[in-house]
Amino acid sequence: MVNLAIIGVTGAVGQEVLKVLEKRAFPINQLYCFASSASVGKEIVFRGEKIPIHPLSLQALDGIEIAIFSAGSKISKEWIPQLVEKGVCVVDNSSAFRMDPNVPLVIPEINGHCLQKHHFLASCPNCSTVIMLMAAAPLHRHFKILRIVAATYQAASGAGFRAMQELKEETLAHLENRPYISSVMPHPYAFNLFTHNSTLNAEGYVDEEVKMLEETRKILQDDQIWVNATCVRVPVLRTHSEALNITFSKEVTVPMAYEILSSAPGIAVLEDRSKNRFPMPSDATGQDLVFCGRVRKDPSFPNTLDLWIVGDQLLKGAALNAVQIAELFLKRGS
Amino acid sequence: MVNLAIIGVTGAVGQEVLKVLEKRAFPINQLYCFASSASVGKEIVFRGEKIPIHPLSLQALDGIEIAIFSAGSKISKEWIPQLVEKGVCVVDNSSAFRMDPNVPLVIPEINGHCLQKHHFLASCPNCSTVIMLMAAAPLHRHFKILRIVAATYQAASGAGFRAMQELKEETLAHLENRPYISSVMPHPYAFNLFTHNSTLNAEGYVDEEVKMLEETRKILQDDQIWVNATCVRVPVLRTHSEALNITFSKEVTVPMAYEILSSAPGIAVLEDRSKNRFPMPSDATGQDLVFCGRVRKDPSFPNTLDLWIVGDQLLKGAALNAVQIAELFLKRGS
Repeated sequence: MVNLAIIGVTGAVGQEVLKVLEKRAFPINQLYCFASSASVGKEIVFRGEKIPIHPLSLQALDGIEIAIFSAGSKISKEWIPQLVEKGVCVVDNSSAFRMDPNVPLVIPEINGHCLQKHHFLASCPNCSTVIMLMAAAPLHRHFKILRIVAATYQAASGAGFRAMQELKEETLAHLENRPYISSVMPHPYAFNLFTHNSTLNAEGYVDEEVKMLEETRKILQDDQIWVNATCVRVPVLRTHSEALNITFSKEVTVPMAYEILSSAPGIAVLEDRSKNRFPMPSDATGQDLVFCGRVRKDPSFPNTLDLWIVGDQLLKGAALNAVQIAELFLKRGS
Repeated sequence: MVNLAIIGVTGAVGQEVLKVLEKRAFPINQLYCFASSASVGKEIVFRGEKIPIHPLSLQALDGIEIAIFSAGSKISKEWIPQLVEKGVCVVDNSSAFRMDPNVPLVIPEINGHCLQKHHFLASCPNCSTVIMLMAAAPLHRHFKILRIVAATYQAASGAGFRAMQELKEETLAHLENRPYISSVMPHPYAFNLFTHNSTLNAEGYVDEEVKMLEETRKILQDDQIWVNATCVRVPVLRTHSEALNITFSKEVTVPMAYEILSSAPGIAVLEDRSKNRFPMPSDATGQDLVFCGRVRKDPSFPNTLDLWIVGDQLLKGAALNAVQIAELFLKRGS
């Protein structure tokens, strides 16, 4: 039984962290909830019990053994080093420490072993990276991936709860022929799509695309692997989909790939070819598993397969993966 | 001035054909409109004049010089050979004759020269192929494309007017927490996406993906070029988007590609990198031009670029291209 803190408890990910902790019966002694000043004074309900929301302070964090941060990079950078110094085990959902060579970047099913005795901080990878690697990593282990060309179909939830609300409100306004002024997303979102709204670099890649490359290299401990991604926001609420074209260094057949994906942890093959029925966001929403299918040989290049994956951005893409890392801390004895 | 017939005038494409003919002041003497029995007896308005809708019959087609078919493969196969035999110039929007070696498959900006004096039938390519090639063909001419890995973000309109209606009705029902039973699309469509709903072959490719390969080879007259596509229906009303990863046989730089795309006919570069602003469906809807942007070097493979394109599925993807072909017939003297 541990004292656990959630920082950013009112956000889209924070809310899911609560549900995942409940669902997995995480052995919590005392739960501490933190959020920005706008939410302070409110309460959340956890296991039927009302828990007040506090503003962050070192004093309020006293006695905490595990902390899960889902409040953005700025908050993470400010508070996590202080907690780590005090010996608190921290799971960070933000990008703040992901590429820090001293911080393991963990997807428990794939590289849980990276979290070692001396680590007090572990980062959750970016949601698109997690979902991609749930399928790609098991295949990489067998056939060594050289290159992935990825196109993403990303949900509103990656931009937070307000983006999900905006998508719904804007769509309703569109259907009712009412004008709507966006305040969260930079572009019209109702029945529309656009390049992922993260910072664009000089080469024309958005940050999300760079993360998919760099985080993959770190997680798979392979600096030669390439991920060339095009990241796109589509009008879907909380599940990301990805079309992957994967080139391997070894020969790989479609049945071999299905066999590996069928037995890999945290991922399930979901398809009925007789009905042209492959994974959809509506299948994965609210589900812990990432779903894959449409494995097919790409005749246009040697040792290359196409693959389609969908995963709940808020669960395996964020909250579930974070709680799984907290479980690793717990297991090793924090 | 010619006598022109539209077959399938009440469909999503047929309705746009009418608008395009009006907008381009196509020199029509008499317009004949045909549709299925459900629409017979109704009227359409063209240039302010009411025109009755007739059922198809050889007699009703008498005196017609140009016919534009947008009523599906079955109708095309049944009626087009009879018209061609009578010397009528036919533009077919269906897939019926696209791969027939005797029938030119025409995108006027790209291979208009294929329509020769002895041809009385020309096919419009599949919408995803047209939109892709508006960008790819000019680049191919300069640098010879070896392979395209494409991921599509396809609108409802490709499945017809009723699919567009269903997307709107189902989305409204979803927002109002009402149940909704789809009758057009095979899967939930509100805030959801799914593999393109065309026939799946034994290798796991849907027909739409096969078309993008085969039609590209025919149009570019290059049997070596590869297109490996993943075609996806997204909840967008009438504009397709495509993420293309293109490998060339020659060295190509990003500025060279922009220069070619900026001066190619029928396509425009639309982007503002300072604002992470690239083409979106909302830009292209109702527009004749196909828009492109996000050209970037793919460092993961030699001579490879990424590129993003959007185009109105009903216009350049179908109706506009068909009317442009009719204009070619007119120009050569039908």
